[in-house]
Amino acid sequence: MAETEKGEYYVGVDLGGTKIYTGVFDSSLNLLGTARVSTKAQRGHDAVIERIYRCVQDAVDECDLSLKQIRAIGVGAPGAVDPESGKVIFAPNLDWKDVPLKKELEKHLDVPISIENDCNICTIGVYETELKAKPKNMLGIFIGTGIGGGLILNGHLYSGFNRTAGEIGHMVIDVNGPKCGCGNNGCFEALASRTALFRRIHTAVKAGQKTILTDMLGPNLEDLRSGNLRKAIRRGDKFVDRVVEEAAEYTGIAVGNLINIFNPEVIVLGGGVIEALADEMMAIIIEIAKDYALPGTSKGIEIMASKLGDDAGIVGGAVIAKRAAKVKE
Amino acid sequence: MAETEKGEYYVGVDLGGTKIYTGVFDSSLNLLGTARVSTKAQRGHDAVIERIYRCVQDAVDECDLSLKQIRAIGVGAPGAVDPESGKVIFAPNLDWKDVPLKKELEKHLDVPISIENDCNICTIGVYETELKAKPKNMLGIFIGTGIGGGLILNGHLYSGFNRTAGEIGHMVIDVNGPKCGCGNNGCFEALASRTALFRRIHTAVKAGQKTILTDMLGPNLEDLRSGNLRKAIRRGDKFVDRVVEEAAEYTGIAVGNLINIFNPEVIVLGGGVIEALADEMMAIIIEIAKDYALPGTSKGIEIMASKLGDDAGIVGGAVIAKRAAKVKE
Repeated sequence: MAETEKGEYYVGVDLGGTKIYTGVFDSSLNLLGTARVSTKAQRGHDAVIERIYRCVQDAVDECDLSLKQIRAIGVGAPGAVDPESGKVIFAPNLDWKDVPLKKELEKHLDVPISIENDCNICTIGVYETELKAKPKNMLGIFIGTGIGGGLILNGHLYSGFNRTAGEIGHMVIDVNGPKCGCGNNGCFEALASRTALFRRIHTAVKAGQKTILTDMLGPNLEDLRSGNLRKAIRRGDKFVDRVVEEAAEYTGIAVGNLINIFNPEVIVLGGGVIEALADEMMAIIIEIAKDYALPGTSKGIEIMASKLGDDAGIVGGAVIAKRAAKVKE
Repeated sequence: MAETEKGEYYVGVDLGGTKIYTGVFDSSLNLLGTARVSTKAQRGHDAVIERIYRCVQDAVDECDLSLKQIRAIGVGAPGAVDPESGKVIFAPNLDWKDVPLKKELEKHLDVPISIENDCNICTIGVYETELKAKPKNMLGIFIGTGIGGGLILNGHLYSGFNRTAGEIGHMVIDVNGPKCGCGNNGCFEALASRTALFRRIHTAVKAGQKTILTDMLGPNLEDLRSGNLRKAIRRGDKFVDRVVEEAAEYTGIAVGNLINIFNPEVIVLGGGVIEALADEMMAIIIEIAKDYALPGTSKGIEIMASKLGDDAGIVGGAVIAKRAAKVKE
């Protein structure tokens, strides 16, 4: 571990719809310790902000540090975020609208706070630590409950006019496909997210499909997770294999579309589904993507799975915290 | 017209698969005169380059100028173009691969040549002259025989890793849709280009569909053009109206996707189909695009039809020529 002076620690916060995850990092962005609590969004934003505060304290305490030794904190929030005003403009998963997250957290914590959209922050985390900020252009694709993305263009985060760029989960790729949570049909998210995978499995099982999953979890597939799909496939479950393969094919088409549109140097896939199923999905994703990209467009482009897994958000949070602290120096 | 010194004229060249179109501009980018010849791509690139040279001379002569008074020339070519080496890397419509267009043209014309991809050049033309380079981010969508696009991000053309960014025509939006020229199914281009519109009309007419178009052009619809569709709709042809409406709906979905992905400040639509059918298509495109964009993402974003029409390419050519000349000063 690099030697870190007093006050040279950073905290990254991953604020999700279901859980809050925090991590303490030294100045070389080594992870020292983490904490986790449920979000309890239904209790309202004041309660959630207090839970973030407690979760930061828990991680700091876990590392035998005190809040006074934390130089800056970076928070990723799910939705449209304005980093300048420090407000979460719109976060449907939290039921938040115009919440002054930065101001409220600074009041509680007395440490400078930076905020960003969660997928942007994961992209920044991957870009700075896994890719060492080398590629000029990069696209991050995160597949979990939903699907989101982040764009690095000419070495900088690109967030567009309303700071909502990267909503690649709502790219329609099958106009007559299944209904998406957003109201449209056949969005990438409705075809390849964990929600889409699980819905396909639940529907088939109800219709009498045999699968090892019911042996593992009971007839109602309670507490089904992405990792269960991996285990079922490795035990030879052809049905689960086909469902995951189909999601990988749709992901490949989406990646092909994005190569045609953006032509980024590197495409990194992350999120819970990729973390659990990279071995099963990545080869298919890459093959289909190169097939759907126009001739010449995918030459030299790298398509890879992130190794940061669930930590991409807290790493990215620490990166933006450190950047903000350096600007202030 | 602004006063222009001797030698302060620029030529823009739009090199297409079927025609070469050239325009002479003064230093304020006022169009002084044009010329047009067929491309005759089947004769090979030497012959095409000679035709470009003659078409430039024709336009210059049309304006009572001589080549010596031309300061710089900008050429838009259909395909992947490397502006630095001056090569057309890959242009399927011309059957060109690694053609040193800049070098060959400079040999003939003795005037500095700049080259760019045709859709990029149209986007630059629209951005600099119609939008006065005001928006930070802009997306150009050009719908003609095919569909292409260009991206202005943070005030500069963005062309990606292999200089092929903006191939939005090959974004799959209906994975089970009609076959595209690229080999995939349901690309935006296979659903809403002039080729797609005409194919749908020809197929329906062969199957017995009644339409005013056959009264206008005969039973084989010879020499069918986008303008004929407009005339048929204005004479009350419900079938043609429905075909054009469907293309507008697909275009709206594509624009919605691109708002979700990029979140540009302005989206400008151009090309022959839009030039002929803007009144019939734009309202539908805007409505569907805002419907498919996530809540909040399209706020304040302008979606408009270009007024440059067929001149976007030559205007953009003059813009890059002028830029290159200014850099050399």
